[in-house]
Amino acid sequence: MSAQQALHERIFDINALNSAVTVLDWDQQTYMPEGGAEARGEHASRLTRMAHEMFVSDETRDLLEKATAAAAPGSVDAAVCRVAQRELDLATKLPAELVARRSKLSTQAHEDWVKARKTNDFKTFSPILTQMVDIARETADCIGYTDHVYDALTDQFEEGATKATWDAMFDGIREPLVNLVKEIQGAPNHPDNSFMFGEWNTADQSKFTEELVQAIGFDFKRGRQDTAPHPFCTNFSIGDVRLTTRYQDYLGASIFGSLHEAGHGMYEQGSPMEWDRLPIAGGVSLGVHESQSRLWENIVGRSLPFWQHFLPRLEGYFPNLRAGNVNDFYRAINKVERSLIRVEADEVTYNLHIMIRYELECAMLTGELAVKDLPEAWNAKYEAYLGLTPPTDADGCLQDVHWSMGALGYFPTYSMGNILSYQIWDALKADIPNADELMANGHFAEILEWLRSKIYQHGSRYTPKELITQATGKPMDASHYLNGITAKYRAIYNL
Amino acid sequence: MSAQQALHERIFDINALNSAVTVLDWDQQTYMPEGGAEARGEHASRLTRMAHEMFVSDETRDLLEKATAAAAPGSVDAAVCRVAQRELDLATKLPAELVARRSKLSTQAHEDWVKARKTNDFKTFSPILTQMVDIARETADCIGYTDHVYDALTDQFEEGATKATWDAMFDGIREPLVNLVKEIQGAPNHPDNSFMFGEWNTADQSKFTEELVQAIGFDFKRGRQDTAPHPFCTNFSIGDVRLTTRYQDYLGASIFGSLHEAGHGMYEQGSPMEWDRLPIAGGVSLGVHESQSRLWENIVGRSLPFWQHFLPRLEGYFPNLRAGNVNDFYRAINKVERSLIRVEADEVTYNLHIMIRYELECAMLTGELAVKDLPEAWNAKYEAYLGLTPPTDADGCLQDVHWSMGALGYFPTYSMGNILSYQIWDALKADIPNADELMANGHFAEILEWLRSKIYQHGSRYTPKELITQATGKPMDASHYLNGITAKYRAIYNL
Repeated sequence: MSAQQALHERIFDINALNSAVTVLDWDQQTYMPEGGAEARGEHASRLTRMAHEMFVSDETRDLLEKATAAAAPGSVDAAVCRVAQRELDLATKLPAELVARRSKLSTQAHEDWVKARKTNDFKTFSPILTQMVDIARETADCIGYTDHVYDALTDQFEEGATKATWDAMFDGIREPLVNLVKEIQGAPNHPDNSFMFGEWNTADQSKFTEELVQAIGFDFKRGRQDTAPHPFCTNFSIGDVRLTTRYQDYLGASIFGSLHEAGHGMYEQGSPMEWDRLPIAGGVSLGVHESQSRLWENIVGRSLPFWQHFLPRLEGYFPNLRAGNVNDFYRAINKVERSLIRVEADEVTYNLHIMIRYELECAMLTGELAVKDLPEAWNAKYEAYLGLTPPTDADGCLQDVHWSMGALGYFPTYSMGNILSYQIWDALKADIPNADELMANGHFAEILEWLRSKIYQHGSRYTPKELITQATGKPMDASHYLNGITAKYRAIYNL
Repeated sequence: MSAQQALHERIFDINALNSAVTVLDWDQQTYMPEGGAEARGEHASRLTRMAHEMFVSDETRDLLEKATAAAAPGSVDAAVCRVAQRELDLATKLPAELVARRSKLSTQAHEDWVKARKTNDFKTFSPILTQMVDIARETADCIGYTDHVYDALTDQFEEGATKATWDAMFDGIREPLVNLVKEIQGAPNHPDNSFMFGEWNTADQSKFTEELVQAIGFDFKRGRQDTAPHPFCTNFSIGDVRLTTRYQDYLGASIFGSLHEAGHGMYEQGSPMEWDRLPIAGGVSLGVHESQSRLWENIVGRSLPFWQHFLPRLEGYFPNLRAGNVNDFYRAINKVERSLIRVEADEVTYNLHIMIRYELECAMLTGELAVKDLPEAWNAKYEAYLGLTPPTDADGCLQDVHWSMGALGYFPTYSMGNILSYQIWDALKADIPNADELMANGHFAEILEWLRSKIYQHGSRYTPKELITQATGKPMDASHYLNGITAKYRAIYNL
């Protein structure tokens, strides 16, 4: 057996454990009866522990060392070693004791958060959130950093990103976004999207959204769609990618939810099959992943040409939908509203929600902001950026699950995704100038093919920065996003 | 940590691996897209190998030895050790090389069987079936036996059973069954069940069968029902038991399929929760398990009182069902037909199908029957016991999946289940004389409670023989079954 083969054998065993945990999690979120929760938690945590132990063992380290020495520079083998090494370094830096303590604490924090949100009582959540911030700081210390505690945390989610990366990103969009929102708010004529709210047959929503995601290129021979309270995309292999969606009063919830998850899903389906079960299969980072979900959800799925093709089909499923003409519909699904809730935010205000969270989690990590003072700080930011003050903490600083899970350093990847989606779309349009026409005719194959060749087929072979530079000719550049949404929304609002 | 706790920790890790494999298998049979098959096979076989290695390790053996020494005789702890020891002995006796070879061969044999069945070509299956019989013999040699090669194989499925057990069982029912079938065939007035065939809405079948199994006591907080091409029941813990059913032209396929699987499911749900993830949780053997599926399917589900309660509800779901009165319906669902296909067989002829398979697999194992001569032997038995000759091998000796999987020694447990179901029902009726009246009023709680207290709550704590003797006052006794079906079918056929 070659050094690579020996490493792969080891990786495949670890992958079997991790993939099983992913299946258990998917099942828990889609079909598991409530009585299964206790044993499921036990099973998942034991398998996770076994995978971790197998991964950080001397045997894996030894195999990886030999395979790295044998791999030709620039080869796929070398990429496998690089990605495995990065993951191994990260896993090794965190003592098992810390991982176990954090896992236990976050289980409790999640429970406390659910209760605090329900009873709108931040005080009962504040102590454990303080502990979660402390443990995040401890995690950062174990990982190590040069400039800022945030660097260590955010790199886990977005390789190569630092606080400086995010500061530059947000500094570039903060003022233009705040101003654009104000400009839009002052427009005389706002779209009416009231016809999108009602009681919509869920079986028809399921059929229509499956038709949509199949049309754009999600492969149902290698995937499926189910329902879940909080939609997500997951995958067990390149050949088995699972989307979920949800059905709400707002008809757009399922439509744009499905398109969003299908964007993630097509990225996962686009890795070369021969990389299956290796660490270079699948999306390279959270930010790049989000660029694909947002591209398909917003740039494709909230475009006029897209609905020139699909509105008649939607009306076929829902004859009671009083959508008006396609332009009315297009304006309705792009209605901009200053709101308090991130997950319901439109494309323009979304990044302001993220920026608020980013600024606050940085301040909590450095100690500039005491966790107990979070509600006031949160409300002040909402007033400053969105001109709104949450009436309750449940609609304010208690709305997101992330911090209760200890996921500090995660939020900026959402904004990165929004920004990259426009940058990538501009590069695509340079190669496919008639993309709008294709969409208006329901043809998405060329668009998908371009994304596959530039992004999906490379999996995690290159770093995020290398990949984006190869695909678009330069590193992340927010001007595409700013120009894109400014043009789109000025047109929609006749500004 | 006590010796028991240390053993349990080890068992829980192995259980996490095995339970994950079970989830992967359930998902594969219910929801998995075809593209997931290859990686799924890899994942499952790696996890199975890890579970096996962890189980047969010196560490497990050592922990088990210490726990056994520490367990009080007759205690639950002692039962855990006894069951674990039996499983460990079995797993240890089979060399890893043999297990791997058998697994590989059976994958190929299954593929060959599917093809041979489709093309009705036994000759292409004969060589690999010969190898499967050889490897079964080799397996029996590793396990060891005193009297007959069959003893070693069948004990894997039914603890304590031997060829002598099955010979006695079949000798007791062969002649009476053959005669009863003849008697019924000669009856002047046969039930008409043609109204049960048609196109039935699958969503309504799903709702009705869920209503049925919930009414008899299957707990949907600790389980669910899905659809699968070949219905089965599986469970991942005591709190998570999954049924599957299927929808066919014959309306009874889903109804009796669901009741059958729910019988298995309620048995699994009935173990004490504190035994969860230990080897004494869940049904004790295949035969006893089948006694519960058959009791709920046939004795409850094909009874007149049951349909006195449920026929109006069924007609509510399917207004086009021309069932006539409840007696017509009762006769229709109990129609006896000499047929060629085991899985479609009624309660009276079913055991004749099993007996044929049992006699043939014994003969193949001893070499009395060469595998290549199986079709002729099969057809001769069908003529002798059922008065029919299969027109093709696809409807004959190629119909069952079992031998292609190497499951020789398995079939008699089906007959054991049928026989025990009547014996257990008679014991239940002695304690609950008004069981018929309860069923006619849709009350199943007392019946389920009796079964729980006598059987389900004991999980695998006792051997099958001990359990049956405790529950019914004696070991397996086929007279209950013979008396039961003779009385039932003489009444139905006015004999």
